[in-house]
Amino acid sequence: MQAEIIAVGTELLLGQINDTNGQFLARTLADIGIDTYFQTVVGDNPARLKSVLKLAFSRSDLIITIGGLGPTEDDLTKQTVAEFIDRPLVPDQTAMTNLLRFYEQSHRELTENNKIQAYYPEGAQVLPNDDGLAVGSVTTIDDKTIIMLPGPPSEFQPMVLNHLREILIKLSHKDHVLVSRVLRFFGIGESQIATKLADLIDTQSNPTLATYAKDYETTLRLTAKAKNSGDAKRYLDELEAKVQQRIGAYFYGYGDNNNLQQVVVKELIRRDLSITAAESLTGGLFQSMIAEVPASSQVFAGGFVTYALEEKAKMLGIDAAILHEHGVVSEMTAKLMAEKSRQQVGSQIGVGFTGVAGPDELEGQKVGTVYIGLSFADQPTQVKLFHFPRQRNDIRVSAAMAGFFMIYQQLKK
Amino acid sequence: MQAEIIAVGTELLLGQINDTNGQFLARTLADIGIDTYFQTVVGDNPARLKSVLKLAFSRSDLIITIGGLGPTEDDLTKQTVAEFIDRPLVPDQTAMTNLLRFYEQSHRELTENNKIQAYYPEGAQVLPNDDGLAVGSVTTIDDKTIIMLPGPPSEFQPMVLNHLREILIKLSHKDHVLVSRVLRFFGIGESQIATKLADLIDTQSNPTLATYAKDYETTLRLTAKAKNSGDAKRYLDELEAKVQQRIGAYFYGYGDNNNLQQVVVKELIRRDLSITAAESLTGGLFQSMIAEVPASSQVFAGGFVTYALEEKAKMLGIDAAILHEHGVVSEMTAKLMAEKSRQQVGSQIGVGFTGVAGPDELEGQKVGTVYIGLSFADQPTQVKLFHFPRQRNDIRVSAAMAGFFMIYQQLKK
Repeated sequence: MQAEIIAVGTELLLGQINDTNGQFLARTLADIGIDTYFQTVVGDNPARLKSVLKLAFSRSDLIITIGGLGPTEDDLTKQTVAEFIDRPLVPDQTAMTNLLRFYEQSHRELTENNKIQAYYPEGAQVLPNDDGLAVGSVTTIDDKTIIMLPGPPSEFQPMVLNHLREILIKLSHKDHVLVSRVLRFFGIGESQIATKLADLIDTQSNPTLATYAKDYETTLRLTAKAKNSGDAKRYLDELEAKVQQRIGAYFYGYGDNNNLQQVVVKELIRRDLSITAAESLTGGLFQSMIAEVPASSQVFAGGFVTYALEEKAKMLGIDAAILHEHGVVSEMTAKLMAEKSRQQVGSQIGVGFTGVAGPDELEGQKVGTVYIGLSFADQPTQVKLFHFPRQRNDIRVSAAMAGFFMIYQQLKK
Repeated sequence: MQAEIIAVGTELLLGQINDTNGQFLARTLADIGIDTYFQTVVGDNPARLKSVLKLAFSRSDLIITIGGLGPTEDDLTKQTVAEFIDRPLVPDQTAMTNLLRFYEQSHRELTENNKIQAYYPEGAQVLPNDDGLAVGSVTTIDDKTIIMLPGPPSEFQPMVLNHLREILIKLSHKDHVLVSRVLRFFGIGESQIATKLADLIDTQSNPTLATYAKDYETTLRLTAKAKNSGDAKRYLDELEAKVQQRIGAYFYGYGDNNNLQQVVVKELIRRDLSITAAESLTGGLFQSMIAEVPASSQVFAGGFVTYALEEKAKMLGIDAAILHEHGVVSEMTAKLMAEKSRQQVGSQIGVGFTGVAGPDELEGQKVGTVYIGLSFADQPTQVKLFHFPRQRNDIRVSAAMAGFFMIYQQLKK
């Protein structure tokens, strides 16, 4: 079964509102296992809507329109579809009763075009609108089905979830489940992952495997189709094992709504390990990312932004002569920033960031050069040197995230 | 001129991401005065993409594709379009040089499919990608134009604003100029602006006037159509005067590529005013936003993240008894954080942030309650109380921005 979504509304074409309905519906269809091949946005224009309907009926089995069911002059979807499929519009008695009651109770004037909201194509199944007046409908014509849904998200979403979903599951003759698993990676690009997993990607059929580049990380979505969720889980486990074997060194967590700082800070809270930092080029970004995570105050009391050399010396109690001798952007400085911040705050972990965010070089070191020091109370301090590409703020974010990843790797040991 | 937008990406069809690019581009086209009649989303599938291209070329003059220019196997737009319009792909030397440098600097492995990002259809005009590796392109074939743009919003939006917009204006209008001016506001919502400017918006024809809600601010784009840029400027000046009269209290700057922290930090640099901060709920975010601005080290030496009460006392030298007496979330604490941080670092401006980011209440104060203290060396310290809506991180960002706006207002006096 191939689905196609048609969103109707000139305000969408003008970019005045974002089509969140399309995404919501696409995700619902994907969850059920129905393939969507096209989504089209068209204005409130009967001729152009008809041309889109004609095309949709020629290439898809399931056509779903969104919007244009309301009472105003530019709401033309219902009339245009009815004409296109050659079915008269007839009133739904329940919806009409609700509509009349609404106008009576709200003392609004009931015009004839308001009533159209309670009409549906003859022979269709009516989708009740629990949150508004305009009904939806499901019309089957030979082997094609056309569904009309209202545009306001507050009416659209409940109608999809409470009424349409069940119908779609039956329509799609679903005899299997689809289960997805999202793996998250840091420090490896989308194209590198694609190269390392090339054979798995090329030969994929079930489970499928897709990479997504996020701003500073990459995710991998594995999706299995199976008779039941137990089988799906087994397929996913098998594929994940192969993936982890190749790029597990860059893996840090699962899920769509997740990120590196969340994984690390939650683990620190779980282990009751307190953390602080002294930040130069990142300028407070690393600490701000800790503070992003709810309940981070359990392990984070505060820290230092030591942008200038004098503040590194003064706030952290580092001998300025050492800073001058080794340079501000150096292994020694990162080491001391990590250790001294930890000692000053009295926490178990201290992180030091020093480097060149640009736009200009510093101490003859290139833009993107970053040293990160990591000091655990009972272990020798480690310092890593990075060369981050791109611009000033990319470098700052990459550095902060690399700090979290160093902690993640240390905790995993 | 009739435009049509084609967004390419299976992740869009699956509803995994929302197509914000389509809306952004639709709005840009509308702004310029180009009509968009159709928007289509199609998956990473060459045959289906070609069918969509064929239809688009049959009904539109300007076809714009979004996405599919990256290095992975499912990035097929460039190759498919090149085949469809029968043009070979050739490398852009500047883009290739950038690409090679990127891979060298980041010590990543350069695979052959990475290089395709620097290619464009022979004879096309290249659109540079200032924030990524994949170039865009504008190809004119007889009376049709096809434009390809990258999918990641962080690359797509700057390419549209900084490179494509001018080209579209030239394409669509030959006998007059269109000049835009963007005004930026903080602390006033899009709907509030729409209400205050309702009569100007309702009667607009030339210049036009459009509001855009950004994450934590609102911009207003005025666009004038005129015989020459002198006339256009005069129209814009007249309209801006009316706008400023009504909502000038919330205005802070001009331009698409601008933001509040940039305006403020540049002004601090210009006046040689040094700044520091002590941050509780914002956790380093305010200082990190200072450090975002190039050359900020001229006025920013460092500062404090004082998340816990003990660190507010220890790092800043505030008597803990006072903190206990007044409460951590209080006018007095914000005042002392501003003053003490300023004294500790020896800078001319100190800012103190204390409040409740949530998810839980603190000291009986509601989530969103924030006190911001602002201490200038030669003036009495001012403290403002805010009640920010929404979630933890919205509250943190709103607070940091409100800090910058307080400084902006003080500097304007």
